Amino acid sequence: MIATMAETNDRRDAAAQWFVALRDRICGEFEAIEAEAGSTARFVRNDWERPDGGGGTTAIMKGRVFEKVGVNVSVVHGEFAPEFRGEIPGTAEDPRFWAAGVSLVSHPCSPLVPAAHMNTRHIVTGKAWFGGGADLTPIYPDEPAAGDFHAALKAACDGYAPDAYAQYKKWCDDYFFLPHRGEPRGAGGIFFDYLEGGDIDRDFAFVRAVGEAFLAAYALIVRARMGQSWTDEQRRHQLVRRGRYAEFNLLYDRGTRFGLKTGGNVEAILMSLPPEAAWP
Amino acid sequence: MIATMAETNDRRDAAAQWFVALRDRICGEFEAIEAEAGSTARFVRNDWERPDGGGGTTAIMKGRVFEKVGVNVSVVHGEFAPEFRGEIPGTAEDPRFWAAGVSLVSHPCSPLVPAAHMNTRHIVTGKAWFGGGADLTPIYPDEPAAGDFHAALKAACDGYAPDAYAQYKKWCDDYFFLPHRGEPRGAGGIFFDYLEGGDIDRDFAFVRAVGEAFLAAYALIVRARMGQSWTDEQRRHQLVRRGRYAEFNLLYDRGTRFGLKTGGNVEAILMSLPPEAAWP
Repeated sequence: MIATMAETNDRRDAAAQWFVALRDRICGEFEAIEAEAGSTARFVRNDWERPDGGGGTTAIMKGRVFEKVGVNVSVVHGEFAPEFRGEIPGTAEDPRFWAAGVSLVSHPCSPLVPAAHMNTRHIVTGKAWFGGGADLTPIYPDEPAAGDFHAALKAACDGYAPDAYAQYKKWCDDYFFLPHRGEPRGAGGIFFDYLEGGDIDRDFAFVRAVGEAFLAAYALIVRARMGQSWTDEQRRHQLVRRGRYAEFNLLYDRGTRFGLKTGGNVEAILMSLPPEAAWP
Repeated sequence: MIATMAETNDRRDAAAQWFVALRDRICGEFEAIEAEAGSTARFVRNDWERPDGGGGTTAIMKGRVFEKVGVNVSVVHGEFAPEFRGEIPGTAEDPRFWAAGVSLVSHPCSPLVPAAHMNTRHIVTGKAWFGGGADLTPIYPDEPAAGDFHAALKAACDGYAPDAYAQYKKWCDDYFFLPHRGEPRGAGGIFFDYLEGGDIDRDFAFVRAVGEAFLAAYALIVRARMGQSWTDEQRRHQLVRRGRYAEFNLLYDRGTRFGLKTGGNVEAILMSLPPEAAWP
């Protein structure tokens, strides 16, 4: 891995810097949205260190539009425990890894504003690859929002490969599904991992395009809906749907379960959980 | 297994009847508590069938004292899928099983009234055994409640075996623990499984004693606290503690994860989740 890590040092730095830059732009945009709603809410940042190496920053804002939105950036390194070797590409002979990424989960106050999730990451083991995705979770079916969100992601995918959107949309649909409920977590989006397109600079450019597409599309969706009023009944329905969101993340989400089992930062991992939820 | 099942037919019937009888007494006692609080809340029963064999009844009450309390009885049978064979005693040569039990989860309205969980069960494979337990989850530390609860369970255990309480208390402490938080789910209780004391009628008598001890002790704890008023701040703290409860059940609880993976009744399994929870 040493050779690989040396070769990819520049890309690792560039990826880590871009994750931070995207975080800053997202936080700036979402704080601007709060200001438009007459709120002075700001992200509060909390740095954390990972005992085995590296660390990150969790930024959380609780506002008038975003009941709770968290954006986490991390750059971590270490060795995979024996139980995880073999599950992760490039770890069979050398358990060391380096990983960086940015992830976001937004739980808006309004049941009429969809929740959203975005993650992009760069992993280096004996191999090096990018992964990521973005998906939308309307509380009530919202065809226009889902349509705009998917169209933005499709445009990013179309610049990468002709079949990318269809493939990554299906991966998202398969992944964000609650088998015990027989229902999807939301309206889907895209999900991809182990990108090895042969030209890792193109892969990185694609990941950046996904991040940009998410930010632009989601900000539009939020702004178009944040002024609408809602009823107590809609709020109660939102809490029940958020219960399903918590079920998915705690029962099935790979990142959540893997992170908690490998000593990850609990607050950073569980920032995805909804501020309030109900199982009436 | 046929021989074993024939031999245990009478005990299976007796166990299944006792689980139902305990359910009826619990529901009666909890409805009486609601009446004492001036509420007319009653348990609402919902029968369900398990596609692979058997079924059960989920009884849920939403009242003035109990924000949500569920009592589930089930008698199910079938065959374990290959992935579970070998994990369960007596299934290596014959995958068939029969299982019955009663389980209860109580989430009171008041942050000053502890939540509680109780389960007793009888399983028949190539072997036959009883299991169960009861544990208390105060929202705020409540030494008197925990002390009374443990004393009642200890009395039941002491009638079974001298070391039973110490052993089953430790099993409960080890089981109801959130490793990612480094904290217990609550104030503990007892947990036991695979009881094979050599005299299964004694095991059954012990399980009945546990059910009786739980009902008597918990009803006293609820009645002593249900009249106290609480603050909004205490309610918010309750919602956060309930989030931890949901984390445990979805991330770690064997029954929850096993049930959902084996096509169990979703509403019956997830009745354990709190009516409202928060991750602020």
